[in-house]
Amino acid sequence: MIGVMGPGSGASKTDQQNAYELGKLIAQEGWVLLTGGRNAGVMRAATEGAKAANGLTVGILPTADDRGISEAVDIAIITDMGNARNNINVLSSDVVVACGMGAGTASEVALALKGSKKVVLLTDNQESQLFFKGLSAENLLVAKTPASAIEMVKKVLNL
Amino acid sequence: MIGVMGPGSGASKTDQQNAYELGKLIAQEGWVLLTGGRNAGVMRAATEGAKAANGLTVGILPTADDRGISEAVDIAIITDMGNARNNINVLSSDVVVACGMGAGTASEVALALKGSKKVVLLTDNQESQLFFKGLSAENLLVAKTPASAIEMVKKVLNL
Amino acid sequence: MIGVMGPGSGASKTDQQNAYELGKLIAQEGWVLLTGGRNAGVMRAATEGAKAANGLTVGILPTADDRGISEAVDIAIITDMGNARNNINVLSSDVVVACGMGAGTASEVALALKGSKKVVLLTDNQESQLFFKGLSAENLLVAKTPASAIEMVKKVLNL
Amino acid sequence: MIGVMGPGSGASKTDQQNAYELGKLIAQEGWVLLTGGRNAGVMRAATEGAKAANGLTVGILPTADDRGISEAVDIAIITDMGNARNNINVLSSDVVVACGMGAGTASEVALALKGSKKVVLLTDNQESQLFFKGLSAENLLVAKTPASAIEMVKKVLNL
Repeated sequence: MIGVMGPGSGASKTDQQNAYELGKLIAQEGWVLLTGGRNAGVMRAATEGAKAANGLTVGILPTADDRGISEAVDIAIITDMGNARNNINVLSSDVVVACGMGAGTASEVALALKGSKKVVLLTDNQESQLFFKGLSAENLLVAKTPASAIEMVKKVLNL
Repeated sequence: MIGVMGPGSGASKTDQQNAYELGKLIAQEGWVLLTGGRNAGVMRAATEGAKAANGLTVGILPTADDRGISEAVDIAIITDMGNARNNINVLSSDVVVACGMGAGTASEVALALKGSKKVVLLTDNQESQLFFKGLSAENLLVAKTPASAIEMVKKVLNL
Repeated sequence: MIGVMGPGSGASKTDQQNAYELGKLIAQEGWVLLTGGRNAGVMRAATEGAKAANGLTVGILPTADDRGISEAVDIAIITDMGNARNNINVLSSDVVVACGMGAGTASEVALALKGSKKVVLLTDNQESQLFFKGLSAENLLVAKTPASAIEMVKKVLNL
Repeated sequence: MIGVMGPGSGASKTDQQNAYELGKLIAQEGWVLLTGGRNAGVMRAATEGAKAANGLTVGILPTADDRGISEAVDIAIITDMGNARNNINVLSSDVVVACGMGAGTASEVALALKGSKKVVLLTDNQESQLFFKGLSAENLLVAKTPASAIEMVKKVLNL
C-alpha cells in the first residue's frame, strides 16, 4: 500500500497532474493507493488516477462520516480524528509519496520520518527539500517526476 | 463494508465458528469485511471466513506496525491508537455485527450506538442483550445465527 | 486524578445531583477531577461541584476547539477526536466513576475495564450493573450514593 | 496554556537550557505549561523549569500508562496514541513554542499551522525557519531567546 499525500484545496495544477499520474502508476504496479480520502486536490486526483487504471483505493477520512469523500475511493476509513488521522495515513503506507506541499502535507512527512518510514518528495518547494533532508538524509528521497518517484518506491521496496 | 467485532483471546469456540461463518457470508454477499485485524479470536476467524469465500478484508490494527496481524487481512490500517481505534472500526462500518462479548466488544457496541449505527448482536450473553436494548431499542438487533444476522444486515441496508 | 463520566444532555436530575456531589467530594479530598469537559449533564455538574469546593478540574473535549466547554473547567484538553477521546478519559483517570448511564458512558466503562481500570458505577440502571459485573467482577464496583462511591475510590487507592 | 514542544533524546544542550528557561518564564507569567510529558529532552527541561517557578504543568503522553513521564508533570494525560497525540498538544495550547527541531517537533509545528495556531520558533535550524515561514508567514514567528519568545507569546495573546 503506497500513500500519496498532498494539499487539498491548496494543490497547484501541477500537483494535481502529478498526483493523477502517481495514482495511475501505482495502480499499474498492482499496488493499493492510500490517500486522505477527501474530494479535493491531490487526494482526489491521485484516487481518480488509480481508478482510471482499475486500481484499489483507500481513503482515510478526517471526518465522522463520508461527506466530502472522493467518489473514487473504494475503501473509506472514517476516523473522526481531524488531522490526527495523518499519523494513520503514514503508518499504514509502505512508502509515503508527498506530492506538493502545505501544512498538512508537512505534518505527514514529519510524522512519516518520525515513524522511520521512507518518504519520496515530489514538489518544487525547495525549502521543504532542504529542511526534510536535514531531518533525515537516510529516509528522505527527492523525485522530479511521478515516474521517477515510482522508481524510488520500487527501490525502497526492493522490487 | 460490514464490521464484525468480537473478543480476541477470550473468544469461545462458538464465537469463532460464528465469526468464520459471518465472514464467509459477508464475502458471498459481495460486501467488504472490516475487523480489528489481529490474529486472534473473532477477528481472525471472520477474516479467514471471508478469504475462504474470496472476499476483501480490512483490518484496523491498534498497534504501530503490522505485528500480530491476521494473515488473511488484505488492507491493513495501522492506527497506533490502542483501543481508541474501536471508534474507527464502528464509524467505518455500514453495520456492526458483534459476535461474542467482552470489554472491548462492549466498547464497540456502545460507540456504535453512540454514533447512531445499527448493531446486530450475536451472542448468548443475555445481560448484554438486555443492557444494550435498554440503551437503544431502535438501533440494536439480536440475532441467533450468522445467517439471521446477515438477513438483519440486509434489512438495515434495504437490500 | 479521578474521572467522573456520565451522560450529557441525557443525564437525569438525580445523575446531575450525584455528579455535583461527586465533584465536590473529589475536590474536598484534594484530588483532581477529570471529565469529558462539555457544558452538559454530568460533565457540567461534576465540574461545577468541584469548583464549588475549590478543586482543580480537567476537561477532555471531543471537539477541535473549546466551544461548548463547561466554564468550570480549568485545564482544557482539545482532542478533536470525537468519542475516541473516551479512551483518553479513562486511561488518564486513576479510578473511573460512572454516574448515570448512556451509550457514551457505557463505552467509557467498557474501555476502562478493557484497560484494567477500576470502575465505580453509580446508577440505578440495573441492567448495566449486571452486564458490567459479568464482564469484570474484579474491577467493577457498584455504589448507591456519591459518598459511598468516594469511599470505594479511597479503598481502591489504598487510602 | 502555553505549549513547549521539542526533541526528546535528540535535544541539544542549548535546546534544554532554552526549554528550562521557557518553562520558568511561563510559570512566572502565571500560565500553565503543556508539553509531551516524557522524561527526556525539551519536555523534561521545560517541565522542570516551570516547577522551579511553582508553575502548573500538563503532560500529554503518547503511551498507555505513565511510565517514562517526567516527575515534574502535575497533570498527566494518557493518550495511548503515539505521535497522533501531537495534534492534541497543539490544539490544547493557546500558543505553541517550538524549542529545537526534529521530526516530531516538525510535525507539531506543521499541525499547529494547519490548525491556524500561532507558533514561535526558537531554534538555530535555519532550514526550518525558511520552510515554515514559507508555509505560513502570518502564524509563524521566530525568536532568538526564551525571553523574546515569551514577549511574542504575550503579543499574540494581546497581553
